[in-house]
Amino acid sequence: MTLHFRIATIVGPGLLGGSLGMALKANGLAGKVYGVGHRQATLDKALELGAIDRGFLDPVEPARDSELIVICTPAGTVAQFLDVLRPVCAPTCILTDVASTKAAICAHAAATWPPPIRFIGSHPMAGSEKFGPEHARPDLYQGCVTVVQAGASLDPAARGAVVGLWRALGSEVIDLPPDLHDRLVAQTSHLPHVVAAAVAQLAASAGHFETVRKLVGKGFQDVTRIADSRPEIWRDICLTNRENILTALEGLSGRLEEARAALEQGDGDALERYFRQGNTGRREVLGE
Amino acid sequence: MTLHFRIATIVGPGLLGGSLGMALKANGLAGKVYGVGHRQATLDKALELGAIDRGFLDPVEPARDSELIVICTPAGTVAQFLDVLRPVCAPTCILTDVASTKAAICAHAAATWPPPIRFIGSHPMAGSEKFGPEHARPDLYQGCVTVVQAGASLDPAARGAVVGLWRALGSEVIDLPPDLHDRLVAQTSHLPHVVAAAVAQLAASAGHFETVRKLVGKGFQDVTRIADSRPEIWRDICLTNRENILTALEGLSGRLEEARAALEQGDGDALERYFRQGNTGRREVLGE
Repeated sequence: MTLHFRIATIVGPGLLGGSLGMALKANGLAGKVYGVGHRQATLDKALELGAIDRGFLDPVEPARDSELIVICTPAGTVAQFLDVLRPVCAPTCILTDVASTKAAICAHAAATWPPPIRFIGSHPMAGSEKFGPEHARPDLYQGCVTVVQAGASLDPAARGAVVGLWRALGSEVIDLPPDLHDRLVAQTSHLPHVVAAAVAQLAASAGHFETVRKLVGKGFQDVTRIADSRPEIWRDICLTNRENILTALEGLSGRLEEARAALEQGDGDALERYFRQGNTGRREVLGE
Repeated sequence: MTLHFRIATIVGPGLLGGSLGMALKANGLAGKVYGVGHRQATLDKALELGAIDRGFLDPVEPARDSELIVICTPAGTVAQFLDVLRPVCAPTCILTDVASTKAAICAHAAATWPPPIRFIGSHPMAGSEKFGPEHARPDLYQGCVTVVQAGASLDPAARGAVVGLWRALGSEVIDLPPDLHDRLVAQTSHLPHVVAAAVAQLAASAGHFETVRKLVGKGFQDVTRIADSRPEIWRDICLTNRENILTALEGLSGRLEEARAALEQGDGDALERYFRQGNTGRREVLGE
């Protein structure tokens, strides 16, 4: 099977969307790539970098002509775009997204789209704390893992095309139901982001900046690197994965309470056990 | 002034101690380097690697002959070694250590040593989650920051020699009173280690290892890298900096509680503000 979309539209041609546009063109997967953005400057930048061939401030015209639409906006606005696109896109158009949370978005699609649903949620685990089309690159998805929504009511051909799309861009695809995806990434990604922000805030509250700056080493830098991520992206991720992040926070509090109790009691054995469980936990998760 | 010690003794020639032995020799700062360890295998390894010239299981003989003694054992055992060394070392011998906590150790020295005290606490911020003489290298201290104890009752010549020693090894020296040192590193280093262990433990508790392994990205790996540190070292650091780490944990809990409340209420503005404070906090601390 050859995967080729005559016209593909990227809604939100930033780091992820712009990279996708470049990758679609570099891999011959799309004839034309349209970009939809609410800021002309972002569209101009994406055009200049060759991430898109044409820019639109309104999604209706490009949606009508597209065989593929990928929504690359923050998690909180994907559902709104689906509502705008559903009545105008062609009956064979395939839709997906790249948001870091899946359950709320996929549930919205299921509630509003008559089956078989041609929106198939995706979460390519690529990107960084950088953002904007100026950081886009055609190989961003090369070697990353992309979760593709699994579940009933999805159009099998659309699902096959979305899986094929990510594989064609060099991504390893794993199939997960949206609920399980969100529960697991709450622990592997969302909670770490919440925690990194707290650690960074706390260190800044100590004052003595000139001295603290010299005391912070690689450990602090690594633990807090993701505290440099975009607030509006993480606000949306939190709002669309509230329950799972709350559960993860509760689990974390329980573990920190163990450490606190051991410290308070000066219990060396308990402290050693606590750090050893950190060793083994990390190795189990990373498979080392 | 030329800094040269006829005989220098390293108590605990592991990663930090072994590197120090190599660096003393590479920089012509010591005639002979003796190593004291409680395991013959470690001493043999340090000898083989040229980190020390002679190994001893008992500290008394090398202490008697040394002009410099550096205690490179975990924080919890430095005070005990000081008690063993004080009655046997020469009246002009200079002593220091490399432990990550300073207040308890320096207070012990002050309580047991008649002033002017020739033990000057040091904390070179070098090393990694690796350990053992096999990872030692002569340039470990090159470019790192070393905190050297500041305070009354210290022998000025001894303090000058310890400062000169670290500078000669390529380290930037900053002077801090032990209490302030411990309070600041509780936030920049010790709390992050406690938190990284909790995040790693929690992710491991989610099960679904085969899937989780594919979902963890650079973010998780960076946040939890220091969860791979040695439990017995971190037990000792916690036990010798209990109050400050407890205070830092309390501060962290307060911030996580803010995130929890914002999540529970679905308060997007508060969540965005929370992550933005993470951005600014990190940049303030790192001076970016």
